[in-house]
Amino acid sequence: MENCGWCNLSGEDKRFQLYEGTCWSVFLANEQDYIGRCILVLKRHCGSLSELTEDEWNELRMLICKTETCFKTVLGATLCNWSCLMNSFYQDPDPDPHLHIHVRPRYEKPVVLNGNTYADRAFGHHYALHKSGSIPDQDREELFRRLKEWLSLPA
Amino acid sequence: MENCGWCNLSGEDKRFQLYEGTCWSVFLANEQDYIGRCILVLKRHCGSLSELTEDEWNELRMLICKTETCFKTVLGATLCNWSCLMNSFYQDPDPDPHLHIHVRPRYEKPVVLNGNTYADRAFGHHYALHKSGSIPDQDREELFRRLKEWLSLPA
Repeated sequence: MENCGWCNLSGEDKRFQLYEGTCWSVFLANEQDYIGRCILVLKRHCGSLSELTEDEWNELRMLICKTETCFKTVLGATLCNWSCLMNSFYQDPDPDPHLHIHVRPRYEKPVVLNGNTYADRAFGHHYALHKSGSIPDQDREELFRRLKEWLSLPA
Repeated sequence: MENCGWCNLSGEDKRFQLYEGTCWSVFLANEQDYIGRCILVLKRHCGSLSELTEDEWNELRMLICKTETCFKTVLGATLCNWSCLMNSFYQDPDPDPHLHIHVRPRYEKPVVLNGNTYADRAFGHHYALHKSGSIPDQDREELFRRLKEWLSLPA
């Protein structure tokens, strides 16, 4: 845990934290290859889905519902692609994985941010592995503002 | 549901069913790009993770634990890649998705089936999207037998 990036987030790392629950946090991902892409990070150091406690598993269910509804309502997403992979930790000779889950909203119709149009050209197919995830700072700020505003509403 | 492939499985479709729970079934996937790859299929027609009932969510937790332990014990898997995507349903003009979850075991060391060696050459990286998933029938049978035997043991 001492050397785990997810256990030692700086203020700057938390700049795009969208939500903090009891067991999980939600961050807007650096890579915005699919607009709204987020990472759900367990607040406890734990290496696999199998090791989640009942409380962590129950809060995950609530967060999946909340984020799917948020993406549909705020961004017009059609569905969400969920994945829990953890591969890159295993490039280390002494892997010490920290559980996190990726969510990529997928769009039948393009999303517009500040007049910039983002189309999901692979809609209906597996997410692309090498799509550019770079978007202008002002679009990232706008996206963050919209998602955070919705997620902060009383349930 | 009338036209849903997962709601109308034939005996032949169920040939490689590894496990049947109250809410979910586990099938050995046709594609064996990652040896042991399985699909967890909800027995009820339902389109997204957000719509799972509490019982379905709780059984999913148990099944994730069971399959991860099975892959590690029987095949020597190092970790598992989990994904819930549902993209291909959205190629249909009137999508009617049926919830299912993919699990790909990942291996630091190769798996051997009937003397054939299967290496995970992308270990530590995202699963490959276009890796061949074809294996000889006798290896598929051997894999099915080993996994089913373990999954049939009393918990």
